[in-house]
Amino acid sequence: MKSTSTFCKSLGIVQPTVVIDASQIKRNIETMAGKARQSGTRFRPHFKTHQCATIGDWFREVGVKAIAVSSLDMARYFADHGWDDITVAIVVNILEMAKINALAKEIRLGLLVDSMPPLAALQGHLEHPVDVWIKIDVGSSRTGIRWDQIEPILALARQIQQGEKTKFAGLLTHSGQSYHEQTHAGIQRVYDETVAHMAAIKRALAENGMSPCQISVGDTPTSSVVEDVSAVDEIRPGTFVFYDLMQRDLGVCDDAQIAVAVACPVIGTYPDRKQVVVYGGAVHLSKDAWPGPDGAPTFGRLATVGREGIGPIHHDAAVISLSQEHGIIQAPEALFDQIDVGDLVAIAPIHCCLTCDLYDRYVTLEGAILPRR
Amino acid sequence: MKSTSTFCKSLGIVQPTVVIDASQIKRNIETMAGKARQSGTRFRPHFKTHQCATIGDWFREVGVKAIAVSSLDMARYFADHGWDDITVAIVVNILEMAKINALAKEIRLGLLVDSMPPLAALQGHLEHPVDVWIKIDVGSSRTGIRWDQIEPILALARQIQQGEKTKFAGLLTHSGQSYHEQTHAGIQRVYDETVAHMAAIKRALAENGMSPCQISVGDTPTSSVVEDVSAVDEIRPGTFVFYDLMQRDLGVCDDAQIAVAVACPVIGTYPDRKQVVVYGGAVHLSKDAWPGPDGAPTFGRLATVGREGIGPIHHDAAVISLSQEHGIIQAPEALFDQIDVGDLVAIAPIHCCLTCDLYDRYVTLEGAILPRR
Repeated sequence: MKSTSTFCKSLGIVQPTVVIDASQIKRNIETMAGKARQSGTRFRPHFKTHQCATIGDWFREVGVKAIAVSSLDMARYFADHGWDDITVAIVVNILEMAKINALAKEIRLGLLVDSMPPLAALQGHLEHPVDVWIKIDVGSSRTGIRWDQIEPILALARQIQQGEKTKFAGLLTHSGQSYHEQTHAGIQRVYDETVAHMAAIKRALAENGMSPCQISVGDTPTSSVVEDVSAVDEIRPGTFVFYDLMQRDLGVCDDAQIAVAVACPVIGTYPDRKQVVVYGGAVHLSKDAWPGPDGAPTFGRLATVGREGIGPIHHDAAVISLSQEHGIIQAPEALFDQIDVGDLVAIAPIHCCLTCDLYDRYVTLEGAILPRR
Repeated sequence: MKSTSTFCKSLGIVQPTVVIDASQIKRNIETMAGKARQSGTRFRPHFKTHQCATIGDWFREVGVKAIAVSSLDMARYFADHGWDDITVAIVVNILEMAKINALAKEIRLGLLVDSMPPLAALQGHLEHPVDVWIKIDVGSSRTGIRWDQIEPILALARQIQQGEKTKFAGLLTHSGQSYHEQTHAGIQRVYDETVAHMAAIKRALAENGMSPCQISVGDTPTSSVVEDVSAVDEIRPGTFVFYDLMQRDLGVCDDAQIAVAVACPVIGTYPDRKQVVVYGGAVHLSKDAWPGPDGAPTFGRLATVGREGIGPIHHDAAVISLSQEHGIIQAPEALFDQIDVGDLVAIAPIHCCLTCDLYDRYVTLEGAILPRR
């Protein structure tokens, strides 16, 4: 752990800071881009995970031209950084019509609907054309029309087509239920069911004269595990850019693919309970939890960080408690003995999207500072 | 719920926004200030909860002159807003010596230590005098020297006194274990034990010639429930300024004292499962959870908001799931039927400190915008 501390200090870190491995991120991007390329499928990465213009540029380098985001403010940020094909991959918030119109004037904007009232609001107030996707619920039960409710889907598609400024783009889903699978076979099954449901709806639409109709799917587990994604028109994974412990424990990535860690100052070591306390709490790691070996919630694990990369990860040294600014790490004795007050330790996050959202910048292993939205 | 939606729209809200009730906040402040005044105890409120210069001014109006914060950056923010007696109520991070020296040059700065190495680092690098408190662990097992370890406490106090720039201020603790109590009697017992432990250490210090020695305690449950705090020199509660559902469920405050809610746009209503989906997720509410009636985690509850205040709170309508930007509210039928896509609903937070930390501003019921650090 001393090498991690020395290295992070060489980056000028004195308080909780997100460190990213640019080389590994580029490998993660290339792997996913390559899969999409090989499948002949559009790669529309979800930029909610990184929210960083510079990382966005790394996607441009592999030919990415279209992106997904999860808010209109995020769309504005990336539009201002030269992205001109953006899907706001959350059911449309009609209270933000002014932002929608401003964006639709400048870029190709994709929006999601799953019911008539917001579509009517859009059609009443849009000043410029937008792509409209129907959000389908294939089992995650968050938003979307359930995949087996063909009639309302047909009615919504028909209504979209009738709008002067609403162009029917297709069917979009997020198979969030993939996060409940523990095996590659289970994740593959989620993908296969998703594709089957989406294809069935597409056929019903075609039979009713509503085509073309694209199919957009996206979640990191299925996009990472499934080899051939040629059955869909686009994939929208986001988390894969950094990966994290949740993805690793789901078997979706390996340790080496995790490209993010939070460097935190050690403010206390407590030999009787073999606990290390860091300046690094819920406002630095997020309280998204993942069960530890005993089933109790954990919030990150110690990692090694150096010029060569992030890892190995010490899966036996977990953050077991978080308050606003404090984190408590339970460490095996051999590891505990290597950590002193005044050191920096690195913590691999449970869920990188939520952790990174707490910061306004990243620091690379080369010491570059990359601002976030 | 329609009146809440109409009212929040009149404030110009179109996306997740923290709404605060300034009048109730001022009442919460006056109640706590009055208790401290009556007990002859210094009121050193913890400003980590609000992190807002304007709210800080409301404390000045009741005579508050000294504050606590949880990071050096927060101390800098409030020093820049005229506060000149600030305790950084987290064990000192010696990697931030430059910030410490800059602050200590300008204001009366209080720091916490619980072991020799950081104290030695301070004594080696301090350029200006600081107050040094010994952090005592009275049962929360986060940081601090355990209250029954008298010898290391004496040794640390002695070493503090020997420093030219380290002035021994006294003993400080955070009785975080009060959050595990479910009754006023239990919370009172935590306070009484805390005071007894701190007083015993103070006596041992006095017997060894180390006096004066102040006693500082602070947590919202004990500070709210205990009537007479004259046994300690200062109290440092923070959460009481807004209160929240956790405090309410612990019996520490009543519904009327909750002075904060997050207004969120409704993007979907799902009659078959009586669920409302809002644009308002983990990055807007935080994933700090509190068990619902069935023991499953919940992340907030619907509240009514209007010109007159925040409340009543619908304890039977909880946020049962959060992803990055989505929240799912399970509502009783009568409430569900009053909510439509395009409305704004208000959500009382589980833990106001973590929720508010996700924003850079507050909106008052009068429509004023108060920037946060």
